Amino acid sequence: MKVYLAGPDVFLPKPDEMGQRKKELCKQYGLTGLFPLDNAIDPKARDASIRIFRSNEGLMEEADAIIANLTPFRGPSADTGTVYELGYMAARGKLCLGYSNDPAPYVDRVKRFGTVEPYDDHLIDAKKLTVENFSLCDNLMMIHALDRYGCRLVVPKTAPADIWLDLTSFEECVKLAAARLPTSPASS
Amino acid sequence: MKVYLAGPDVFLPKPDEMGQRKKELCKQYGLTGLFPLDNAIDPKARDASIRIFRSNEGLMEEADAIIANLTPFRGPSADTGTVYELGYMAARGKLCLGYSNDPAPYVDRVKRFGTVEPYDDHLIDAKKLTVENFSLCDNLMMIHALDRYGCRLVVPKTAPADIWLDLTSFEECVKLAAARLPTSPASS
Repeated sequence: MKVYLAGPDVFLPKPDEMGQRKKELCKQYGLTGLFPLDNAIDPKARDASIRIFRSNEGLMEEADAIIANLTPFRGPSADTGTVYELGYMAARGKLCLGYSNDPAPYVDRVKRFGTVEPYDDHLIDAKKLTVENFSLCDNLMMIHALDRYGCRLVVPKTAPADIWLDLTSFEECVKLAAARLPTSPASS
Repeated sequence: MKVYLAGPDVFLPKPDEMGQRKKELCKQYGLTGLFPLDNAIDPKARDASIRIFRSNEGLMEEADAIIANLTPFRGPSADTGTVYELGYMAARGKLCLGYSNDPAPYVDRVKRFGTVEPYDDHLIDAKKLTVENFSLCDNLMMIHALDRYGCRLVVPKTAPADIWLDLTSFEECVKLAAARLPTSPASS
């Protein structure tokens, strides 16, 4: 079974090392991890961004499943590139798994960036925009997409010391994937 | 032609008014707008979040196109629920359009929240995470999904006075949608 390894891991200081670690873990459980940087594209090349887009889409098409790193990235929510890919894979009928190394509910995450207060029967932020309050970690579309097309979002009981390098919850996703598609015709 | 009206508009102080304005604009160009709040679901109801998920998915399936409001939401990037839906619609082969009322490149958007500085041959933020630098407004997956499955991201030359209420760029998307599918079998 081939698994697309989506996440802001590509923005880490050593993205290739992270890709290697994730692929090693996949291998231990009989899966093949596909990492966005597998198709090395020079970011300085002409049309690099389009080539990266096409490459990632190709890897997603090749994969049977996605494991999305939905740890909050530059704000209270997950990385948008990763979220786009989760939506894409859900609509393609692929097995969808995801984890967040930050287990905090969305309301608490928003509070880190400013005030959240009651207004009428709901919560609003400092800009008077409604704050989703369903005791979920992030926007309901992502969270319930995992419920519907794969497994419930995997979160640690408490955030690990390094939310970008800890792969405990990622490994849990790998186990869930391996258990869900043990006899997939696409297994290799 | 039915158009799914995705965006953080549902989090505005008066979301129903915004939905109505968007649907009116669609109607002026011969399109039918589907707004997430059309299926009124009481947010206090049991399993409300799952019911909203299912309802939004149903509206997306019913639609021929999506117009996504990708204006930055609680950070430098678009609302994650909207981005999930864009990925979903792209993978479903629907016509994908989007706009951002903030025309700033992603690097400039990130700078609003902290330092961005050169490191080796790329840019990093205060947490040493790479900042995408392709002169695009947001993550390349979304931006190029629009190029591939619809029309280039619509942005104003300068941000309007009210980035949440101004519908100039939205209307431009409506025009583009109306021009692209004038004889769609699904037109109504």
